[in-house]
Amino acid sequence: MKNLVGACMFAQSGGPTSVINSSAAGVFTEALNQKNITAVYGAAHGIKGILNEDFYDIGKEDMQEILYLKNTPSSALGSVRYKLKDVSVDPTDYNRILEVFKKYNIRYFFYNGGNDSMDTCNKISKFMASSGWDCNVIGVPKTIDNDLMGTDHCPGFASAAKYVATTCAEIALDARVYDTGLVCIIEIMGRNAGWLTASAALAKVAGQGVDLIYLPERPFDMDKFVEQVSEVCKKNNNKCIVAVSEGIRFADGRYVGEFKASTTDLFGHAQLGGVCGILASVIKEKLGVKTRAIEFSLMQRCAAHLGSKIDVEEAFTAGRKAVQAACEGHTDKMVCYVRKDQKEYAIDYELVPLEGCANTEKKIPDNWITEDGANVTQDFIDYALPLIQGQVEFATENGLPRYARLDKYQAGRK
Amino acid sequence: MKNLVGACMFAQSGGPTSVINSSAAGVFTEALNQKNITAVYGAAHGIKGILNEDFYDIGKEDMQEILYLKNTPSSALGSVRYKLKDVSVDPTDYNRILEVFKKYNIRYFFYNGGNDSMDTCNKISKFMASSGWDCNVIGVPKTIDNDLMGTDHCPGFASAAKYVATTCAEIALDARVYDTGLVCIIEIMGRNAGWLTASAALAKVAGQGVDLIYLPERPFDMDKFVEQVSEVCKKNNNKCIVAVSEGIRFADGRYVGEFKASTTDLFGHAQLGGVCGILASVIKEKLGVKTRAIEFSLMQRCAAHLGSKIDVEEAFTAGRKAVQAACEGHTDKMVCYVRKDQKEYAIDYELVPLEGCANTEKKIPDNWITEDGANVTQDFIDYALPLIQGQVEFATENGLPRYARLDKYQAGRK
Repeated sequence: MKNLVGACMFAQSGGPTSVINSSAAGVFTEALNQKNITAVYGAAHGIKGILNEDFYDIGKEDMQEILYLKNTPSSALGSVRYKLKDVSVDPTDYNRILEVFKKYNIRYFFYNGGNDSMDTCNKISKFMASSGWDCNVIGVPKTIDNDLMGTDHCPGFASAAKYVATTCAEIALDARVYDTGLVCIIEIMGRNAGWLTASAALAKVAGQGVDLIYLPERPFDMDKFVEQVSEVCKKNNNKCIVAVSEGIRFADGRYVGEFKASTTDLFGHAQLGGVCGILASVIKEKLGVKTRAIEFSLMQRCAAHLGSKIDVEEAFTAGRKAVQAACEGHTDKMVCYVRKDQKEYAIDYELVPLEGCANTEKKIPDNWITEDGANVTQDFIDYALPLIQGQVEFATENGLPRYARLDKYQAGRK
Repeated sequence: MKNLVGACMFAQSGGPTSVINSSAAGVFTEALNQKNITAVYGAAHGIKGILNEDFYDIGKEDMQEILYLKNTPSSALGSVRYKLKDVSVDPTDYNRILEVFKKYNIRYFFYNGGNDSMDTCNKISKFMASSGWDCNVIGVPKTIDNDLMGTDHCPGFASAAKYVATTCAEIALDARVYDTGLVCIIEIMGRNAGWLTASAALAKVAGQGVDLIYLPERPFDMDKFVEQVSEVCKKNNNKCIVAVSEGIRFADGRYVGEFKASTTDLFGHAQLGGVCGILASVIKEKLGVKTRAIEFSLMQRCAAHLGSKIDVEEAFTAGRKAVQAACEGHTDKMVCYVRKDQKEYAIDYELVPLEGCANTEKKIPDNWITEDGANVTQDFIDYALPLIQGQVEFATENGLPRYARLDKYQAGRK
């Protein structure tokens, strides 16, 4: 627990969310106010920006623009998917980061990301400690997948869930407009955890539910799927709306969308996509009804205009708490949300060791999935519904959202 | 010009929009206030509801629910795609409609739809006149395609355009977040007219433009397309965002979306994911960059939470004006918008003969398309930007939009 004086470095990593910049705004505003922090830097494209000495002097930005970040989707500094090798395998990157940290007297490091980013954050934290370079390292969680251990939920999830619930409700109205049949298959992000896909169940709160929900937590059975859709169609004039996770797999482990993917990404994840199209084709062939395949694609993670106010404010506060914790001498921790055990929704902000959050995935509890494997229980609704409350108020210009325009004064490559 | 006393029938037809129910709310509130209108009926599934005597007594609905219709997407009464045969070919449907109109003393008929619906409206109007049944018939325009003749723009277009512009701006932020290349191909509705696809150009007003726009008004050349994407990629670190209409065709008239039939696809589903998937595959193959195909699908026409306030209010007023015009004795007309010739945007509501609106399509003027055929000029921006102004305020419940819940008291089948 050391009180350090020096510069801070902030970086964003992994897939963007609607509120990752809200956390950035939280980090920046708090860091600019801390007297022990001598300079506030934002790295371009995550860890790559540190390796390349490519980062910006946030202290020179207009404070109003920093506040506009609260409602600006995507990662304003740029993101990256870059996995640090284990230090025992190759210490090159670690030595380079240490060199840069020493050159700019970086004593505070904040990394905003998901599982893989918390792994990076943890590795850097451990390396700095073992190298004797005092630097307080705090992770700020972020992922629409909501799969980080150690926190009640993740910043970014609630806004994506609000998008999914609202859009499913809108589609349910549209897709049932004719007196002829239509089966809609909606594909939602989530490789191994079904939190976001399950959020389609929230649409029923608006009176416009989806009929079936398939999550990666359960093996997918094509015959059972066809049967379940067929049953809904029989009861409901050939109309059925299905929400399905991009990551569903057959019992033998193959992704349902796998045959479309010939490549894997840097982390060894299969490149997914196309599940909705495949399932729509199967239904059309087997049941002979009209189908429509809908992919929420990038929209589900960047529709900041439909963000959850709770999420935006929590993400902002998470950023501030990270800076406060580091300035109080904490290190090697991630900020987490702890839900209060009371009727009205509220959370406490606490710290958990980075180690417990890195590279592990939190899935939907098995007993929150209905017995037929094609929906979620009231437990999930009770968990997720408080998170999507509140409409964001955002500035507009010419009828469109007014996004932050950072000047990005180059501070690296001195 | 006759002042008639009797019931009114309202019906919705064709593809839904975010504001077609706002017009319904306008028709209902105005009709319920007119002393010459003895009952207000809403037909289930358009013209089919009349043929089947399947319609509701709107006078029994809660007025608050009728007002919720202003922000409820899709067609609350149900829609239909049903083309009346020419009366000389088969008068069955016409005679049946006349029979129902006589049975319920329908003296006012309002049909809310696009090209085909105005054709239906026109045919019914002419038939009633020739049969000697006094009935004032007024069309209320509706289409996200914005392709109706006789009106400056169509109710529904502006909200869809606001969705397209906002979502393109959000995607542009997300898709440029990594320092690696990505070509995004966004597919937007519009079979023969490119108004909605062109609205992607409005995203640049938020500082987040798309790079290339392909409209059905111009023949599509695959080689030129690859060359134009390649040029943008060269200038911009392999990043490029393309907006493309679902209806683009090659010079020989074939739809680009049918190109898929000749490519390898396990299920051969030509209507699914169509154009954007094909173009993304071509770019990936020819330029070797990562691509993402995004289809705005049903969302672009049902995202009422992102409606244009101008559009919602105009659509409501268009419904009211239709009823007022009919009660003043007008018939065989469509309500239209006439833009005032002044700096600040404003419109007048006028009437045009139905005949001029039916079965014709208004396309983007040729000189509003840039010389390279891959964008629109400032003329389009000046035309469309005023229409997407204003954020809708909508009621929410549990963090989700509060949609109208009509009781739908059956009034037909007496």
